[in-house]
Amino acid sequence: MANPKIINGVNVDELFNTINSVKSSPVIATFKFKANNKWIKGGHNRTSIKNFYGVQKDNPHKKPFELDADEPPLLLGEDIGPNPVEYALTALAACVTTSIVYHAAAKGIKLNSVESRLEGDIDLQGFLGLSKEVPRGYKEIRMFFKIDADAPDEKLEEIVQLGPTYSPVFDTITRAVPVSVKLEK
Amino acid sequence: MANPKIINGVNVDELFNTINSVKSSPVIATFKFKANNKWIKGGHNRTSIKNFYGVQKDNPHKKPFELDADEPPLLLGEDIGPNPVEYALTALAACVTTSIVYHAAAKGIKLNSVESRLEGDIDLQGFLGLSKEVPRGYKEIRMFFKIDADAPDEKLEEIVQLGPTYSPVFDTITRAVPVSVKLEK
Repeated sequence: MANPKIINGVNVDELFNTINSVKSSPVIATFKFKANNKWIKGGHNRTSIKNFYGVQKDNPHKKPFELDADEPPLLLGEDIGPNPVEYALTALAACVTTSIVYHAAAKGIKLNSVESRLEGDIDLQGFLGLSKEVPRGYKEIRMFFKIDADAPDEKLEEIVQLGPTYSPVFDTITRAVPVSVKLEK
Repeated sequence: MANPKIINGVNVDELFNTINSVKSSPVIATFKFKANNKWIKGGHNRTSIKNFYGVQKDNPHKKPFELDADEPPLLLGEDIGPNPVEYALTALAACVTTSIVYHAAAKGIKLNSVESRLEGDIDLQGFLGLSKEVPRGYKEIRMFFKIDADAPDEKLEEIVQLGPTYSPVFDTITRAVPVSVKLEK
């Protein structure tokens, strides 16, 4: 198309093309995301993200992404990277934000800025195996958004709720997702 | 201590000191992890991780961590960083790995290598709002581990299962965690 319609940096023509393609052939919407991890030392390990499956083919990223995780000294690491539960907040923040941005674009709402801060509560008694009643993971996560949009104030609440309504990571964390862990020879 | 006991890069003396401190004063185990996110353009946004609360005080990281998320071109982004659901796999991989490493250290089991690969299934009909039956997030995640340890083969299964048993991110994903999303002025 000569002049694609771009809102919030999202090519809305392409977005609706994608929606229409999925409607006529739902199988193309089947995606498989992948990661490889290698332990380095103590709390330090590295995840590589290289490719994913979608639209019935393997799709390599432009370049592989390498993500170091570690623990801070207080948790016996060397603070080489964010720790795993901080990566979980990152996934959630990024996903809810992108869901707001894409779905606002689809509705023709122009956003000027989107900022958020997140807090999540963990009681380490769970991880340390000191209590069976204390969950090992987050007890609760709170997200606070500031949004500036070309929309009346009373519309902003509706815009922010596009995030939890459509976000895959929000859904992954708030619903119980089955995860299998297997040993390979 | 002059000669701390280090197993798998984990200071096991310190680990047991931590466990004993938490036993005598559980309040120090109350942690709050934090993240800030700023939307940049389209599917591109950036999360900053600066500090966390734990052991009854604020703890800054040695340096702030900045993590770019984006979508690949197939999902209308520019592939500047991993996408949010890939960050979720990163969090899970890192956390299950660290849980194996720390808990093996606590049991005195020396690990030589830990590698894993992860796959997660997502049907984009959920995110696109095309079906109410299709979940927006992961339908299922599979983790495959290869572990080399100074332990008999029949012990390896037990070692790998330390991961899902203790991992906070495994717990966060497999249990339904409440997440609130609020608009701030």
